[in-house]
Amino acid sequence: MYKYLDKVNSPKDVKVMDAEEMDMLAKDIRKFLVRSVSQTGGHLASNLGVVELTLALHKVFESPKDKIVWDVGHQSYVHKIITGRKDSFVSLRQFNGLSGFPKENESPHDIFDTGHSSTSISVAQGIACARDIKGEDGSVIAVIGDGSITGGMALEALNHLGYTNTDMIVILNDNEMSIDKNVGGMSRHLSNIIRNSTANKVKDEVEKILSVAPGGNLISKTANKVKDTIVSKFIPQECALFDSLGIKYYGPIDGHNTKELIQILNKAKNKKGAVLLHVITKKGKGYRYAENEPQKYHAVSKFDIKEGVKSGSSKSISASVGEKLVSMASKDDRVVAITAAMPSGTGLNLFEKAYPNRYYDVGIAEQHATTFAAGLAKNGMKPYFAVYSSFLQRGYDQIIHDVCITKKPVTFLIDRAGIVGNDGETHHGMFDLSYLNLIPNIVVMAPKDTKELNLMMDLSLKLNSPVAIRYPRGNSYYLESGEYEPIDLGSYEVLSSGEDTVILAIGNMVKQAIEAKRILLDNNINPAIVNARFLKPIDENLLNDLFKKYKNVVTIEDNTITGGFGSRINKFIIDNNHNIKVVNIALPEEFVHHGSTEEIYESIGLSPSKIADKIKSL
Amino acid sequence: MYKYLDKVNSPKDVKVMDAEEMDMLAKDIRKFLVRSVSQTGGHLASNLGVVELTLALHKVFESPKDKIVWDVGHQSYVHKIITGRKDSFVSLRQFNGLSGFPKENESPHDIFDTGHSSTSISVAQGIACARDIKGEDGSVIAVIGDGSITGGMALEALNHLGYTNTDMIVILNDNEMSIDKNVGGMSRHLSNIIRNSTANKVKDEVEKILSVAPGGNLISKTANKVKDTIVSKFIPQECALFDSLGIKYYGPIDGHNTKELIQILNKAKNKKGAVLLHVITKKGKGYRYAENEPQKYHAVSKFDIKEGVKSGSSKSISASVGEKLVSMASKDDRVVAITAAMPSGTGLNLFEKAYPNRYYDVGIAEQHATTFAAGLAKNGMKPYFAVYSSFLQRGYDQIIHDVCITKKPVTFLIDRAGIVGNDGETHHGMFDLSYLNLIPNIVVMAPKDTKELNLMMDLSLKLNSPVAIRYPRGNSYYLESGEYEPIDLGSYEVLSSGEDTVILAIGNMVKQAIEAKRILLDNNINPAIVNARFLKPIDENLLNDLFKKYKNVVTIEDNTITGGFGSRINKFIIDNNHNIKVVNIALPEEFVHHGSTEEIYESIGLSPSKIADKIKSL
Repeated sequence: MYKYLDKVNSPKDVKVMDAEEMDMLAKDIRKFLVRSVSQTGGHLASNLGVVELTLALHKVFESPKDKIVWDVGHQSYVHKIITGRKDSFVSLRQFNGLSGFPKENESPHDIFDTGHSSTSISVAQGIACARDIKGEDGSVIAVIGDGSITGGMALEALNHLGYTNTDMIVILNDNEMSIDKNVGGMSRHLSNIIRNSTANKVKDEVEKILSVAPGGNLISKTANKVKDTIVSKFIPQECALFDSLGIKYYGPIDGHNTKELIQILNKAKNKKGAVLLHVITKKGKGYRYAENEPQKYHAVSKFDIKEGVKSGSSKSISASVGEKLVSMASKDDRVVAITAAMPSGTGLNLFEKAYPNRYYDVGIAEQHATTFAAGLAKNGMKPYFAVYSSFLQRGYDQIIHDVCITKKPVTFLIDRAGIVGNDGETHHGMFDLSYLNLIPNIVVMAPKDTKELNLMMDLSLKLNSPVAIRYPRGNSYYLESGEYEPIDLGSYEVLSSGEDTVILAIGNMVKQAIEAKRILLDNNINPAIVNARFLKPIDENLLNDLFKKYKNVVTIEDNTITGGFGSRINKFIIDNNHNIKVVNIALPEEFVHHGSTEEIYESIGLSPSKIADKIKSL
Repeated sequence: MYKYLDKVNSPKDVKVMDAEEMDMLAKDIRKFLVRSVSQTGGHLASNLGVVELTLALHKVFESPKDKIVWDVGHQSYVHKIITGRKDSFVSLRQFNGLSGFPKENESPHDIFDTGHSSTSISVAQGIACARDIKGEDGSVIAVIGDGSITGGMALEALNHLGYTNTDMIVILNDNEMSIDKNVGGMSRHLSNIIRNSTANKVKDEVEKILSVAPGGNLISKTANKVKDTIVSKFIPQECALFDSLGIKYYGPIDGHNTKELIQILNKAKNKKGAVLLHVITKKGKGYRYAENEPQKYHAVSKFDIKEGVKSGSSKSISASVGEKLVSMASKDDRVVAITAAMPSGTGLNLFEKAYPNRYYDVGIAEQHATTFAAGLAKNGMKPYFAVYSSFLQRGYDQIIHDVCITKKPVTFLIDRAGIVGNDGETHHGMFDLSYLNLIPNIVVMAPKDTKELNLMMDLSLKLNSPVAIRYPRGNSYYLESGEYEPIDLGSYEVLSSGEDTVILAIGNMVKQAIEAKRILLDNNINPAIVNARFLKPIDENLLNDLFKKYKNVVTIEDNTITGGFGSRINKFIIDNNHNIKVVNIALPEEFVHHGSTEEIYESIGLSPSKIADKIKSL
């Protein structure tokens, strides 16, 4: 079925190929990637972009003795395909299936688990320094995107690496995109280098001249030779930024020219010290739809290859948040929006269009985003920083130090809270209720549905303090029709009364509680349900009443069992000497694997039936 | 007493002075600083370095309309002195006294609370963007050190700032030091710029020529004029690093030349866009001892001005940790040590001397340090990252994502855990037990004394998982004489038996518990004391026994009340249906002010007598 790919079961099979065969293999792999991801969903555009680069890396280096560290890791599919895992792609990102990210326990070729951006240089430098201490040899290569490299920790790593000048290679995979279009002074600098590259200019000229000359294949071969000469003559160029840090820069390099890649990688392999190769690739390369809209094809669900990805009819919660924020901004000049390189993921692309002057995409920079928001708040604005739960961990000190100590009215719109599904361990937003719980001065809430989310955003505008609102990945949903009442700070909502047991559910676990109650009613068990809208402040009066009235209390949260909502309720019960039996239902104190959200809920006890089972056992 | 300083009660009083008067004022301020800090303790060397710079800023700009944001903030004393607070310096850093850092609630001239490094550019940009949205005017100035600017968040901010080109000024205060000597590619780059500065070279030449010419004062005035001309001719120079990011660089500028500073600040004030002034200062300037050993005079206790700071006879816990780590490294080749710009603060300066090849100072870069450690661990090392508790918040995502998901055997030696005293809100290590508690796969422990700390370090070497050991600021201390038994994972130690009540104390709260028990015994109350060495794993068997035996349990920790040790014990009690009354003693759910540790303990209920009172009330 795939003439070249069928022959490849390990990197060895790539090593025996020449550049032309590798180009044919690249075609096969692109076909395989599009077909496979169209059936399972997954990350597409970034993988299509690194086919030649990945093959050239495995051609020149000896994985896993030489260590290739993939930053973020969603672009590691080609690497997985040629390191013996192509047959597992039918299970990609499914429960118990192949991970969409590098996993050390999947293959010795996967050097380091990842998922968040900007970690690869630090990891690679650690591996390289350990190699040097042990007196071993072998190359260490970090492959990092032009978005990821602007993350603070990558810049810290470059600063350290340039100083130690450790033998290692950084491959800057520059497609001028993060998930969305890149921003930042560094991106602009890199783009200028590409545009002003003498090698590229001359190559273009040569190509033009030779393309009009007669002679067919022969001329074309000559043309390639001429171009190769140009490459070796003109690379390395200079890059003020990396050179000034002490890292030798080579580039720009055509990331879809296998010969050029092999040539330059061989050169880099034998260099001493820290080397950076600036490789230019095209996201989505080889699949027309993805080339045209790389952002839409960054991560996709199943789709028809011929038709491409169809826009869904349902609206994501993120989009609802974006719309609501636009509406708030139309009424209040103080509302400003901040994203860390995720305008479309967070719904802020809507805000960017409506209020470009009050919108900031700061790049992959959660630390700066948080403190920048604090600065805006200091000078009278109401900043909303929309960010994924697990990525906000990057701004943790800034939340404490710059936002909460002096109670700056910054609101964190925490998207992808709870179980996110197929992205797995690194992406589940399973810690936010706990890591925010312990910070003084911040109001933390989670809505039962999308309408309540809007009301919480209204409330945040009124509060003169730090606020966090966390909500899950997925489509907007509504538990009730009609209008809801505005929300008062710290007020819980009794959704239904019952006997013996009261369920305190927070955020989208309210939905699970309602469904669990349906099951329980069939078993003549009738628990009360309370929508515990606030992690803090809690509704002390209501809780005191409830804990006198009921025999059992069940807390439910899609957050780790440790230190979150249940923990706060436990503490309240202990401090107030309530005599009530408590059951905390939450995510286990372990990292949770990938799979569909429903499968994961079922496996860890957060599905309605599992919740009902626990309540039955009371 | 101070001819010039006595005339200064607000920035207005500086504005009327000319450069020569300001230089006389600078002399007064240095005298005041040395005298004042010698009586209260505090940060000295950095403040002596920024006297002229601070005066020039207040001469040229209109604080607080123009906003000066001090990075870190321990160099804000001069700013405090001339903004109406000089008389409060007798209370500097004392309980209820003047803070050693900028505090918004102290003065409208203090634009933003700080304490941690690298935040000022983000804050200033936020303030500047809000100004632009509102259509207001006024300058915004971030003053940041050459150490702080290499922190990841500052680099993120520069990347964003260069892109937006917001009107603001970054003053890079370059003394080639953080607290210790600076490292990193960027520092090297900046040093090269200073050394190769044409302006500086020519100025030196002119000075040489004129210094041998006759003519006294007249010639000296001419010399100054010539030098001023040189300054205006040769500044701006170029700096590849900042220019490439899109930030206009001016420098290097002599930070002790008031005229030059005023000239260049006036120039910068009228520039559009983002401007960086590279100002060269000398830490400790004007006090001989501090000039010679700026690191020793970074933060000092009371001292005799004539004699200088005497080295204390007692050994800090940090130094004990450094010694122990050296001893471990001598027996185990895998032991490597990492610091984020704090070799002397953490005791790792000892390790640097003993094993320079296994020692890494990564600069102010807690994110990189954490993941770099994970990389080292991946390749067979046993990395120890010694870091202050509140600074480790900067590496939070990296602990979760790079260390704990795959259980890398990295050990965090968490110094300055609990109340640190006079540095206040930003420096208390009051969250670590809670923020680590919620992370799966990490072992967290805290020793009762310095000998147990050594044993915990021994244990960490045996464990093949992430480990955190937290210990307080202060001198080494020992609760018992003789040898201690090695520690088993998750084992608590019963220190004394008793009646009715058992105290579970973690870390240095064991000492408080023992002292509280002495008080209680005088009142015929005899609680048992257990040394709860592990936050996790807890000693479940022992706890089950204890909770059956005793009527009350009191947990004590010098960590926030929310989500830490007490929280874990509460959860265990609830899950196991123990019928026991619980009292959690801990830090309140609020930020804790500065003062001596003893005063703070007393005020928040962690002193032995306050603990005893709580137990009495049971």
